[in-house]
Amino acid sequence: MGDQGHFATSPWRTGTVRLEARFDMRFQVEQATPMLMVLRPRIDVRQWIMKDHFFIHPDVPVSEYVDDHGNRCQRLTLPPGPCQLSGSLEASVAAEMPVDRSAGFVPIQALPDEVIHYLLPSRYCESDRLGELAREIVSDSEPGYAQVERICQWLSRQVAYRPGSSNTLVTAREVLDRGEGVCRDLAHLGVALCRALSIPARFVSGYLQDLDPMDLHAWFEAWLDNGWQGFDPTQAGRKGGRIILAVGRDGADVPIYNQFGPLLIPQVLVFSVKRLDG
Amino acid sequence: MGDQGHFATSPWRTGTVRLEARFDMRFQVEQATPMLMVLRPRIDVRQWIMKDHFFIHPDVPVSEYVDDHGNRCQRLTLPPGPCQLSGSLEASVAAEMPVDRSAGFVPIQALPDEVIHYLLPSRYCESDRLGELAREIVSDSEPGYAQVERICQWLSRQVAYRPGSSNTLVTAREVLDRGEGVCRDLAHLGVALCRALSIPARFVSGYLQDLDPMDLHAWFEAWLDNGWQGFDPTQAGRKGGRIILAVGRDGADVPIYNQFGPLLIPQVLVFSVKRLDG
Amino acid sequence: MGDQGHFATSPWRTGTVRLEARFDMRFQVEQATPMLMVLRPRIDVRQWIMKDHFFIHPDVPVSEYVDDHGNRCQRLTLPPGPCQLSGSLEASVAAEMPVDRSAGFVPIQALPDEVIHYLLPSRYCESDRLGELAREIVSDSEPGYAQVERICQWLSRQVAYRPGSSNTLVTAREVLDRGEGVCRDLAHLGVALCRALSIPARFVSGYLQDLDPMDLHAWFEAWLDNGWQGFDPTQAGRKGGRIILAVGRDGADVPIYNQFGPLLIPQVLVFSVKRLDG
Amino acid sequence: MGDQGHFATSPWRTGTVRLEARFDMRFQVEQATPMLMVLRPRIDVRQWIMKDHFFIHPDVPVSEYVDDHGNRCQRLTLPPGPCQLSGSLEASVAAEMPVDRSAGFVPIQALPDEVIHYLLPSRYCESDRLGELAREIVSDSEPGYAQVERICQWLSRQVAYRPGSSNTLVTAREVLDRGEGVCRDLAHLGVALCRALSIPARFVSGYLQDLDPMDLHAWFEAWLDNGWQGFDPTQAGRKGGRIILAVGRDGADVPIYNQFGPLLIPQVLVFSVKRLDG
Repeated sequence: MGDQGHFATSPWRTGTVRLEARFDMRFQVEQATPMLMVLRPRIDVRQWIMKDHFFIHPDVPVSEYVDDHGNRCQRLTLPPGPCQLSGSLEASVAAEMPVDRSAGFVPIQALPDEVIHYLLPSRYCESDRLGELAREIVSDSEPGYAQVERICQWLSRQVAYRPGSSNTLVTAREVLDRGEGVCRDLAHLGVALCRALSIPARFVSGYLQDLDPMDLHAWFEAWLDNGWQGFDPTQAGRKGGRIILAVGRDGADVPIYNQFGPLLIPQVLVFSVKRLDG
Repeated sequence: MGDQGHFATSPWRTGTVRLEARFDMRFQVEQATPMLMVLRPRIDVRQWIMKDHFFIHPDVPVSEYVDDHGNRCQRLTLPPGPCQLSGSLEASVAAEMPVDRSAGFVPIQALPDEVIHYLLPSRYCESDRLGELAREIVSDSEPGYAQVERICQWLSRQVAYRPGSSNTLVTAREVLDRGEGVCRDLAHLGVALCRALSIPARFVSGYLQDLDPMDLHAWFEAWLDNGWQGFDPTQAGRKGGRIILAVGRDGADVPIYNQFGPLLIPQVLVFSVKRLDG
Repeated sequence: MGDQGHFATSPWRTGTVRLEARFDMRFQVEQATPMLMVLRPRIDVRQWIMKDHFFIHPDVPVSEYVDDHGNRCQRLTLPPGPCQLSGSLEASVAAEMPVDRSAGFVPIQALPDEVIHYLLPSRYCESDRLGELAREIVSDSEPGYAQVERICQWLSRQVAYRPGSSNTLVTAREVLDRGEGVCRDLAHLGVALCRALSIPARFVSGYLQDLDPMDLHAWFEAWLDNGWQGFDPTQAGRKGGRIILAVGRDGADVPIYNQFGPLLIPQVLVFSVKRLDG
Repeated sequence: MGDQGHFATSPWRTGTVRLEARFDMRFQVEQATPMLMVLRPRIDVRQWIMKDHFFIHPDVPVSEYVDDHGNRCQRLTLPPGPCQLSGSLEASVAAEMPVDRSAGFVPIQALPDEVIHYLLPSRYCESDRLGELAREIVSDSEPGYAQVERICQWLSRQVAYRPGSSNTLVTAREVLDRGEGVCRDLAHLGVALCRALSIPARFVSGYLQDLDPMDLHAWFEAWLDNGWQGFDPTQAGRKGGRIILAVGRDGADVPIYNQFGPLLIPQVLVFSVKRLDG
């Protein structure tokens, strides 16, 4: 939990907004289906959750736990028949993603123990195969913030952001081949390129105010000398408040849901967020 | 988190109730006062939190983390002037505290690593000084459930339950001398006597439906061969649903709030819970 | 740490051997090179480490921490010039890998929270792409032990075990294409196939008595209803005692060493183990 | 594990010594006795353990785990008859306890989450009852290092250090009444006084080079703005290297051993440490 920081990095320093987020998922279930979900917001110093509602119909037992990344995970089994999971949140968060261009590179031996594992390659981030490309992209950048910013600029030029263009999980190298992807794909490639430069990086899923088209969103964070810094390769301006649902090594750690058994296609899958206090 | 169990111990097995809990705390603050609070319900397999509201006026930064016992802790600094913290919960929980009279004693070497520290003496539970008394109380009881039940019966005879009778934290041995106490005191003595018999035990704070007079409540849990079993020395019948706020070695780990600096007396301090679906 | 179990699964039940393991690594270092190593044995209920020696020349600062999987990790920076890391161990372990053919499949909702992440796909174990193959392999096996045993038999027929045949990290699917691999490769494919069947599985690195040719070894473990069970697709007879160095989602989590900076080829890299009390 | 820091605080900055420590414990056991021990050195950035030997006769199963404070704990059951536990260590550590007189007080809201619980009162450190005394002692000291140093000076004047003067665990307030104590007692009172001033503090057990009379030793650490600082109220000069066995809220967390069942008096209980490279 050490990486959650404290007031030094709290959003109240730079102005806050109050957001309301909503989700609605409906399934027609054929046979009892175990699910693992990450639909409640992470306990994170950067957001204060004032309201948190989560309803399940029909009423089934749910078990919740906190995983190794600090995310709240829900475990349940959907029974046969129509099922609905829905909820809403109210949160106070930074009015936009903080930027600190002076943030420097942290030498490997000075990294806190608990961020070391965000240096390792993972399922969708083959950083062990992307060293050459990463070094080429940042060849004329200063170590630290400028390198990660450069990676984001490169991504926005090289990989077309096409919401809806992929509906399966593809890896960073596969994204590179395709030349296009959804927010999750660009985040995976960003994470992989950072790690290839020995910059710890992690995947983030959450809500972004005014995202267009509105949906759940994904971006990434890099560990620099003032802690975890957010970067969003699909939203160059970094406008709008964000509610973090979960962080992980990549999308394999923090799916909206992992289902087990025969494939279940949601009939409804809606996520939205809006500002309350504007 | 290993001790949170899974569906094997979920409340849905024995019938559930839907409860609504509320709290309201108000202070007139003279100088900025750091606070550490445990006012949000623990993430626990035995309860599903459908709604969770928490408001603070004026709006100040809050940091939340999960402690070593799995509790959600809030950190904030109250600013000078009038301050209010209030909130409400809706939870689905077991209709009453489950009883399993067949639960057996677990030999020390078979205890899971993560419950070992609940065997040790702690600030308000001097189990290292209560061995003789504990053995005397349970001298004719079978190891396991019957021993803990016997301790509860002994407590209800020997220590008068007087809500409001103590307003400071007293230890288990001090409770014994006084012969009376609040729910927290009886829980402390129960915990200490269990540990003196090598039964891991922990303190629980939470809401109890229909508690009279209505207030926040405290009870304890003992680790037996089917996991953490609840015991309530002040409520012999174990009636009513319960929402667990926090668990700990004793009240020192899970105060409603720890304040730092000059003493701050709450002007309002109200906790209540009622059934919604009856 | 909850998965480390307790005496119920200790090796003393089935006869023990006393093993001595040794390692020796030497480098000619051009420029200061940060390293992350997992060269000390994991704290694990299944082995008692009586002696543990670890020497580094020249004398440089080393930092050690325990990672999320419970492994002991060493962090240090090799200085320019000749460097040697060497050490030895004496351990009491089970005389051979325990077999319990009655071990059953654990339904997803009954899995302990802390093993859930061993169900997810990882860098070298693309379980999300191997479901069809996995189901085909075990089509006529009973759920649980028999399925994993069947996967091992299939692996030993389909993938030739060729020590030295790969010197880079390849993924489970790449191993499948190659049709041959080192112990690590077969372990990765075994892990991936288990996870594809919703059986939690993890990669293990360690020493195996009488391995031929002698070297560090790798195998895997599957979570069944009596806990973590070892399986070794390259050693059908499961003969000989084992010292576990580390466990992880796959080889990315538990490398012998991760180096950062220009590639460093070891001049010496020797691992050996022998029985002391036979 | 976050508090273990990294190379920034490593002992190599100030000169190291190589120490050899030894222990020997012998019991004549009447009936099988479960034990919980903390006899292996903590994994801690401030010490590099080159050799670690631990022998038990007769050969019984031992289970080891890492507790919430990061200590290595051994669990075993001594069988009836003569039993011996013995071992030795070789470690490279700082030549003497580092001193940084500029270390400042950390405001409560800036404390890392993981040190918060070292602010709470504990079994042998009734910091909730010592606020007035603590403020009086440090009334003319600057916040931070000077306050803790002042507490140590006060302790060495007010509480006579008498090795062997107590053989049972007494609390900080009891030490105050007695006016004398062993190293553990002075450490407890030091911890309690620090916490009463909102300075996180923890108890340390370990070996001290040249301690006279030679034995296992205890001291404490306070959290200041450069991390955990060691203080030793019985050794004003802070001379000599130290090997840390364990840290905890107080002696209840880190006993040499906790035994369960009928009292077992050791026939031999010897601890020693000497310098190897002088």
